Amino acid sequence: MKFIRDSVHGNLKLEEFEVRLTDTPEIQRLRRIKQLGFTYLVYPGANHSRFEHSIGTMYLASRLAKNLQLDEDTETLIRSCAIIHDAGHGPFSHVSERVLDSSHEELTSKLIKESQLGDILSEKFSLKKILRIISGKGSLGQIISGELDVDRMDYLLRDSYYTGVAYGVIDVERLIYNMQIDDGLVLRSKGVQAAESMLLARYFMYPSVYQHHTTRIVNSMFRRCLRKLLEKEIVNAHEIYRYDDTDIIAAARSQSGYIEDIMSRLDTRQLYKRVYSLKLDDITHPEAVFQMDSAKTKKVEKEIANDLGVDIDCVLVDVPEYPSFHEMSTPVSLNGKTVKLGDVSNLVRALKDARFNHADLCIYLPEEHADQAASLNFQDYLDIHK
Amino acid sequence: MKFIRDSVHGNLKLEEFEVRLTDTPEIQRLRRIKQLGFTYLVYPGANHSRFEHSIGTMYLASRLAKNLQLDEDTETLIRSCAIIHDAGHGPFSHVSERVLDSSHEELTSKLIKESQLGDILSEKFSLKKILRIISGKGSLGQIISGELDVDRMDYLLRDSYYTGVAYGVIDVERLIYNMQIDDGLVLRSKGVQAAESMLLARYFMYPSVYQHHTTRIVNSMFRRCLRKLLEKEIVNAHEIYRYDDTDIIAAARSQSGYIEDIMSRLDTRQLYKRVYSLKLDDITHPEAVFQMDSAKTKKVEKEIANDLGVDIDCVLVDVPEYPSFHEMSTPVSLNGKTVKLGDVSNLVRALKDARFNHADLCIYLPEEHADQAASLNFQDYLDIHK
Amino acid sequence: MKFIRDSVHGNLKLEEFEVRLTDTPEIQRLRRIKQLGFTYLVYPGANHSRFEHSIGTMYLASRLAKNLQLDEDTETLIRSCAIIHDAGHGPFSHVSERVLDSSHEELTSKLIKESQLGDILSEKFSLKKILRIISGKGSLGQIISGELDVDRMDYLLRDSYYTGVAYGVIDVERLIYNMQIDDGLVLRSKGVQAAESMLLARYFMYPSVYQHHTTRIVNSMFRRCLRKLLEKEIVNAHEIYRYDDTDIIAAARSQSGYIEDIMSRLDTRQLYKRVYSLKLDDITHPEAVFQMDSAKTKKVEKEIANDLGVDIDCVLVDVPEYPSFHEMSTPVSLNGKTVKLGDVSNLVRALKDARFNHADLCIYLPEEHADQAASLNFQDYLDIHK
Amino acid sequence: MKFIRDSVHGNLKLEEFEVRLTDTPEIQRLRRIKQLGFTYLVYPGANHSRFEHSIGTMYLASRLAKNLQLDEDTETLIRSCAIIHDAGHGPFSHVSERVLDSSHEELTSKLIKESQLGDILSEKFSLKKILRIISGKGSLGQIISGELDVDRMDYLLRDSYYTGVAYGVIDVERLIYNMQIDDGLVLRSKGVQAAESMLLARYFMYPSVYQHHTTRIVNSMFRRCLRKLLEKEIVNAHEIYRYDDTDIIAAARSQSGYIEDIMSRLDTRQLYKRVYSLKLDDITHPEAVFQMDSAKTKKVEKEIANDLGVDIDCVLVDVPEYPSFHEMSTPVSLNGKTVKLGDVSNLVRALKDARFNHADLCIYLPEEHADQAASLNFQDYLDIHK
Repeated sequence: MKFIRDSVHGNLKLEEFEVRLTDTPEIQRLRRIKQLGFTYLVYPGANHSRFEHSIGTMYLASRLAKNLQLDEDTETLIRSCAIIHDAGHGPFSHVSERVLDSSHEELTSKLIKESQLGDILSEKFSLKKILRIISGKGSLGQIISGELDVDRMDYLLRDSYYTGVAYGVIDVERLIYNMQIDDGLVLRSKGVQAAESMLLARYFMYPSVYQHHTTRIVNSMFRRCLRKLLEKEIVNAHEIYRYDDTDIIAAARSQSGYIEDIMSRLDTRQLYKRVYSLKLDDITHPEAVFQMDSAKTKKVEKEIANDLGVDIDCVLVDVPEYPSFHEMSTPVSLNGKTVKLGDVSNLVRALKDARFNHADLCIYLPEEHADQAASLNFQDYLDIHK
Repeated sequence: MKFIRDSVHGNLKLEEFEVRLTDTPEIQRLRRIKQLGFTYLVYPGANHSRFEHSIGTMYLASRLAKNLQLDEDTETLIRSCAIIHDAGHGPFSHVSERVLDSSHEELTSKLIKESQLGDILSEKFSLKKILRIISGKGSLGQIISGELDVDRMDYLLRDSYYTGVAYGVIDVERLIYNMQIDDGLVLRSKGVQAAESMLLARYFMYPSVYQHHTTRIVNSMFRRCLRKLLEKEIVNAHEIYRYDDTDIIAAARSQSGYIEDIMSRLDTRQLYKRVYSLKLDDITHPEAVFQMDSAKTKKVEKEIANDLGVDIDCVLVDVPEYPSFHEMSTPVSLNGKTVKLGDVSNLVRALKDARFNHADLCIYLPEEHADQAASLNFQDYLDIHK
Repeated sequence: MKFIRDSVHGNLKLEEFEVRLTDTPEIQRLRRIKQLGFTYLVYPGANHSRFEHSIGTMYLASRLAKNLQLDEDTETLIRSCAIIHDAGHGPFSHVSERVLDSSHEELTSKLIKESQLGDILSEKFSLKKILRIISGKGSLGQIISGELDVDRMDYLLRDSYYTGVAYGVIDVERLIYNMQIDDGLVLRSKGVQAAESMLLARYFMYPSVYQHHTTRIVNSMFRRCLRKLLEKEIVNAHEIYRYDDTDIIAAARSQSGYIEDIMSRLDTRQLYKRVYSLKLDDITHPEAVFQMDSAKTKKVEKEIANDLGVDIDCVLVDVPEYPSFHEMSTPVSLNGKTVKLGDVSNLVRALKDARFNHADLCIYLPEEHADQAASLNFQDYLDIHK
Repeated sequence: MKFIRDSVHGNLKLEEFEVRLTDTPEIQRLRRIKQLGFTYLVYPGANHSRFEHSIGTMYLASRLAKNLQLDEDTETLIRSCAIIHDAGHGPFSHVSERVLDSSHEELTSKLIKESQLGDILSEKFSLKKILRIISGKGSLGQIISGELDVDRMDYLLRDSYYTGVAYGVIDVERLIYNMQIDDGLVLRSKGVQAAESMLLARYFMYPSVYQHHTTRIVNSMFRRCLRKLLEKEIVNAHEIYRYDDTDIIAAARSQSGYIEDIMSRLDTRQLYKRVYSLKLDDITHPEAVFQMDSAKTKKVEKEIANDLGVDIDCVLVDVPEYPSFHEMSTPVSLNGKTVKLGDVSNLVRALKDARFNHADLCIYLPEEHADQAASLNFQDYLDIHK
């Protein structure tokens, strides 16, 4: 048994089995993966790691398990899943994910099978069961990876704590207290407000933190840099979960040319400038933006680069992430029936309507070329109608 | 003008001159230097950087300057000094300092002279004046680097916030409000309690955080590793302020043998074990411990290594830092006279008496050799009498 | 000059003029008026007073004034208005307001004119100007009493702090930073999200705190009790701003019969029970509920009392407050034009749609009669169609 | 089962038995007793009640009980004792205690025996056992009322939260975690620092809050007023635990002359002025001060009043409370032996030496007579030698 002091939740107790899990190199690596990637260039306090988030998620999982009156073994199962749920994350967390072909859930699954982590886990549980849970299947899966899961509760609280942005403060107690297992994990109607509040917290965190316009520039720069490292096979995409943030930075610094240039700009915070922004609210068919695949994006970048007489890698077209919104169908138990959250909450419906509010497609250029771009009509290149 | 959101103090305003200072590569580098070195292996939230601490110190410097009714130029001077006061820190902050021949103040001075930072600063101020201040000379120097300086106020609050250890919570408002400039910076008698409280906060943070027994093991391991990197001239001691944490880790990983082994142990948290502890409270002349120079330490390590039949680098003798206690003579203004803090505060005197309470000399070995060590009488090697 | 330590905002500085204002009996009385009335029977920490709220509002007023770059005199004017803005509140704050014929703004105006407060204020300012401001007129009025005023910012933060309900945590810095004075007080478009967040905070605080179902029962009980005290002329409605919470409780305890019974129930927390709830979301014309005047309400109470064979005062029909929603038209400055908040925010529109979500008309009875009521069809009495 | 939201500890769970205890009029009365009496005249946020403190103490008692691995019945016993431990407090808590002949522990004991509280408690436990515990006897008694008890932990945290004074922040987790039951409740040596920190917290809270010079004036005024109410038999000392703060204020307001004058001064914050202060650090035999009984005090007051030509009740001689310091002998388990805290902690010894640092005997007069007093040599009246 061991205590870890967490800045968000206080003293967290780990049982011996959990200590063994966290002591593996796979989980220790998470200490060296920043939870929010390069967000520390915008919010200087955002240096927190996937490790603390994993332990914090374990803690909340426990509280939910106790509230659901799960037996001790199931609680340990859920706690173990929380500890390992992010083990497959590449360096700088989600930033690297978009460059890869596999999701972090798939990578976690691969990693578990081939590492010591899998050995320890299989002493107590079937790996198949564990993989089902961390990919969100079944009631137990909903605890770890669902619409109102403990993962999200922890990251909202934690990102709020470290960035200093108050929006992420949520009422975890009320949320946890109002969940029950029927067919699956269900929210009691008394918890609807706490759920609304959590979805709003996330909604507000997007433009302020997760999709802050400077963060998006930084992430675009880094992704291009990482893609080059993968193309040149300096970094191995299939084993991305073996690298930490330091590995990638050191690899980039050791290169010359474009890769080294980007890393040096990130180090000295000499960031690309946004020369164009197309708000999705302003166009008739926002879906068209999301349908831009990497070939199309590349084509646009190439044309702009040609017309400006700059290298293609100097042009970064940043297509926003599709704001999915599964929460509409979160099951709510109301007067003995199970309804959907979207049906009982005006606010959740409004959030769905508002989900493109802060989304825009952006184009970035190095500062030294930004002025040149003033004459361009970017919309022509994109071929998207307002 | 620009705002930076700090998790500890809220929105901090930077004037244009200050933005230019913080935008230099020298200050941006501080984003990649952990404030507490490897402490994140003990407190997983302790990932905060020298950068946020520097900005936070600037904020408190401003508040103190306003309270002292300094004119605007002097306030800007003090704010600028706060921003740069740690620019000379090597990677992992104080951990590397003990391995080097120069203090971080000397290195900061050297760095300023030879970098863009110096150019910007000399537009407004004489570098000589600035260097005097950051080395603690004069009334203004006492604001930045004295017994009750804003540097210390910020790091206590900040380290407390990120480790989750409550001890560092101090009453900054009362402290700042009760300072005045007479001959030098002086504490009004109404602030004695707030000063006591701050000194106690620091006293409590030592064994809990700064000198936590695991932190000390980690730091000893890293220092030995860094010393090897310096000896092999892989890292240049004279320009240590050009490296960030990533550089050193990457350098160590790229080596083989001892250096790589230590770094791998730090990465996987397979730490050396403490096989011996000599408490300074238990010996008659604790000074003898602090008189052990590196030659003596090396000799002891060699003898133990010989007797155990292990490599000398496997034995780490960790002499504690000398707990200096200048606060006794902090000037306090009492009924029109200036007296010493130690004369008006029983508690401060008690803290001085208690300063060896948590100090001990330790010896560490790799876990695989720890058992062998059980038969040794370590005190014989040390030649220190109880 | 004087400092007051506020638990929410820290050390607050008062200039000499402000000290004189707060030292009047009229402002000191606010120390003895609970900000949230009887809410402490639901949230035991909710014992905070109108006094601390007034000082806290002064502090936020100052910050907004500084941000708007108002001159020093105007800042003092605004701070003074903040200090006195609630001086007309009757005991238990808003709870008593509904029983009276005058709003607390009208009462404040009357009080100022006839008290020492008015004398002090008129040394510096015209009373007319002050009364205009505290009734929300003009740009300065919007600071104190508008849709996004400092009064509301303070009470959300403060009520959140003392009840322990996290919903009220708002981003005051961002809100204040994004306001400007054009024709009137205007929100910059960058502040829309902070405004949304504040309106949501208020929205969430309603069912959790301000209209918590137990709070509503308690308030209904107290209002009936206060009405009796006014009818019997034990308490003088025209000078309600001369009484504090203690006066009313003591007056009620000194009575016999119904008044004393209610006060004794409040003291021992033996509350009436809710025997009926008509959700406004469930009826076609919710306005019909708000059109119930006191004559209609009394008639319903009488009929129910008759049919149950109990005293009419045992039946409490609690018509919810009309959820007004002026925020729709808060001016927002967007690309040089002034638009309405409701036009640029999906969320604010959704909040308007959702404003009846938590509203219901309730009927309460003493516990000992609650069972009897099971047989009644309350909707028949109300004569409101679903 | 029921949840109560506490602003300090979060959601607190009460079992059915505990709900029945808190629902008694005796415990509900504590909602109307301010924890810190009139301290709200100095710290406007200090309006918190004995009720929340009692529930908070229950929560900490539970955590300590769980850590000590007490069985479920014993935990319920300890929780019940925590709920009721302050039930005998008179209005305004400790302020009234000094005027009475009985301590609040004695009054609680009397109250329990004659009230519904005793009936409920005796369903499960022997009243004798309960009274032993709340008077601090035995290991269980040490949990509720010892040197490092949960009562003190809660009030330090809570008073800190509501006054906004940071000193009371303590490391409850470490303290609770390092306690064990041997012969009695014992602190493990690893917890010495947390204990030091708690004792220091209390030490710092004394001059800042509990014995703040203005608070002492207010308390002296109120005590004199209360004494008059008792002498005139308007308030019954033997049943002081039946009154709440409102009762006493209302009683005083209903009087004329001195009593009404004092209450009116408290209401309008027109406080007596301190005209003399004798610091205990400045006199050779500080014990002489504590030996002043009420007869001696009265004599001094009379003589001063005579010489000033004012009513005797206008002169308030305020003898400080004797700063007892039992913590020196708190048992600490060190290397298998039980030693005393004073023997292992320099700081605790220093605190003992410093315990008179902030103590002084004061004399107060109404503002209108304060000037007259300038000519008097107060030390002559006191007959205490420096």
